[in-house]
Amino acid sequence: MSLIPIRWLTQSYNATGSDEDALPRLALLDQRLLPGETREIELRDADGVARAITDMVVRGAPAIGIAAAYGVALEAVRAAHEGGAWGARLEAACEVLAASRPTAVNLFWALDRMRTVIAAHATRELAPHEALLREAVRIHEQDLEDNLRMAEFGAQVIAASLSTDTPHCEVMTHCNTGALATGGHGTALGVIRTAYAQGLISRVHVNETRPWWQGARLTAWELVQEKIPARLAVEGAASLIMQSRDGDGDVRWLIVGADRIAANGDTANKIGTFSLAVQARAHGVKVMVVAPLATFDASLDSGAAIPIETRDADELRQAGNRRIAPDEIEVFNPVFDVTPHEYIDAIVTEHGVVESPDSDSVGALLGRAQRR
Amino acid sequence: MSLIPIRWLTQSYNATGSDEDALPRLALLDQRLLPGETREIELRDADGVARAITDMVVRGAPAIGIAAAYGVALEAVRAAHEGGAWGARLEAACEVLAASRPTAVNLFWALDRMRTVIAAHATRELAPHEALLREAVRIHEQDLEDNLRMAEFGAQVIAASLSTDTPHCEVMTHCNTGALATGGHGTALGVIRTAYAQGLISRVHVNETRPWWQGARLTAWELVQEKIPARLAVEGAASLIMQSRDGDGDVRWLIVGADRIAANGDTANKIGTFSLAVQARAHGVKVMVVAPLATFDASLDSGAAIPIETRDADELRQAGNRRIAPDEIEVFNPVFDVTPHEYIDAIVTEHGVVESPDSDSVGALLGRAQRR
Repeated sequence: MSLIPIRWLTQSYNATGSDEDALPRLALLDQRLLPGETREIELRDADGVARAITDMVVRGAPAIGIAAAYGVALEAVRAAHEGGAWGARLEAACEVLAASRPTAVNLFWALDRMRTVIAAHATRELAPHEALLREAVRIHEQDLEDNLRMAEFGAQVIAASLSTDTPHCEVMTHCNTGALATGGHGTALGVIRTAYAQGLISRVHVNETRPWWQGARLTAWELVQEKIPARLAVEGAASLIMQSRDGDGDVRWLIVGADRIAANGDTANKIGTFSLAVQARAHGVKVMVVAPLATFDASLDSGAAIPIETRDADELRQAGNRRIAPDEIEVFNPVFDVTPHEYIDAIVTEHGVVESPDSDSVGALLGRAQRR
Repeated sequence: MSLIPIRWLTQSYNATGSDEDALPRLALLDQRLLPGETREIELRDADGVARAITDMVVRGAPAIGIAAAYGVALEAVRAAHEGGAWGARLEAACEVLAASRPTAVNLFWALDRMRTVIAAHATRELAPHEALLREAVRIHEQDLEDNLRMAEFGAQVIAASLSTDTPHCEVMTHCNTGALATGGHGTALGVIRTAYAQGLISRVHVNETRPWWQGARLTAWELVQEKIPARLAVEGAASLIMQSRDGDGDVRWLIVGADRIAANGDTANKIGTFSLAVQARAHGVKVMVVAPLATFDASLDSGAAIPIETRDADELRQAGNRRIAPDEIEVFNPVFDVTPHEYIDAIVTEHGVVESPDSDSVGALLGRAQRR
């Protein structure tokens, strides 16, 4: 069984000539079942991929964008196979994929890239499935490359914050931002991987990340695989850990990913990030956000305009087979919060680092990146 | 089925004359099963009560003290029934009960009261079961009276913080400090009950309280029973809620209980309390600790000396029938944290309120109470 979160499954096929069963599929590792079970789900069209994103089979802002791009390619293969007009069908596929989750902007960015390819082939008789698959693969591969670049930049930021007296430190991370959430390596967890390999990190504190336990289920699992020293705790223990009351803690950095970053650096990320950033500030712990440029939404002046997804109440009323809250209690189940840029010490992107981000410094970074 | 957390079950009996089955028992509502199931566990001796405390059948600092007192009384009944020397047996009972949980000081306070009764009857031939049961009932009843007094004081503090423009406010609470955690009414939740009845509170934000979900399972359940408007969220949502980004929040107070309070006001309470207090400070939300005088440990200058219980790793690796973390991940599972007194705006006791607590003001309160 593969542990790769997103795989394009193909035999030798020809969209127009192949029988239905020979058409390619998208295999997604069902992340809801980890770490207990590793099972893939195979999808055959954009509707299926959209449902998988909504149901959190795949999650993590970059991975959602990659999966959505493959979803468009899948639909194009089917359109080519079945023949006939395909423009409206692919536009509908983009729309259903865009509606699958509301907060991560990488999703919309990936779909925009797919739409550009669609537009460039608008006059073709058959759906441009090969060009669309190439673009999806490019998005996927580019994400991995960008992760590796961010990891180097982030490790440099950590190195610069240390001294010869304290050549390494402990860090805290939230949710999962690793290979499972991206095209590979990871954003925040990618920085942690690389900085650990460079001897800059001695231990990682992992928050379990309620209500979906991405920290416990996914980040802990990735760190165990790689034998990086790590310790799991509930979110509530953050101040105790940052304050080092347990005697052996020396947390210097809170390192997190992002689902959408506004033009002033305000950052939407997994619920709990803002809470942790507030505590980090109080305890002298620095905050690093690691995210590719595709995460920025320059159309939003501040985080106040970022839509925040709220999910079903039963995610807080049930845990496994266990009922943990009465049916009658009202539930507030937001998936994300927005950390104001004042709480962020550094945003690390594949195009470089913004320290103490604000509208000016973020604008300068985005301008630089565009000119390249 | 009774919903009373601690009940002394007795038929007409005479310790020395009764057969074994007619001896009284202590019934504890098994709080681990709430809200799904309401089932009582019946205990016959101090060992059984100690195990029930360790296993969290009953929890909450005041309730633990009350249960332990009844545990000594149970053992005395059996000692009287079986005859013979009873002093060493009751001392052993006190010791096993004292070892059941390490952090809540009410436990040791209640056992000290029981030991005083034991000492006063040291020359008697039979164990003084009637006097010990009377003392346990007195501890139980006094706790309820104290709760009602604290509730009035706490409501006055809330009222004084409001204005004619804002005659009521929202509050946040953590863990369970209600009727289930005490002799009745509750400490922090007792203040909330009374303040709600007085029209001072419009809504209660309940943190689910990982890893035992006392907020979701117990506080949400108590508030639903009483039809007090309440909303459940994960701990990670605290800053989002306090900041009122969701538009309709107006949290003015974080109201919590305590498991042990040092002489300077530093307060040990359920893990997450310190994290919430740090966030409250950052968002202009005030912090109220509600605890009977029995919670103070004047022998400790500061919170640094309070022992913090850590529990089994599997409490974070399993949820219901679900495996939520790999077996190989190291786990940090502290039950409590210590909120430094600088983060506390008011400590409410049955002997009055200490605002901005420190060694001087806490010392003055304890002195006043002692002179009464």
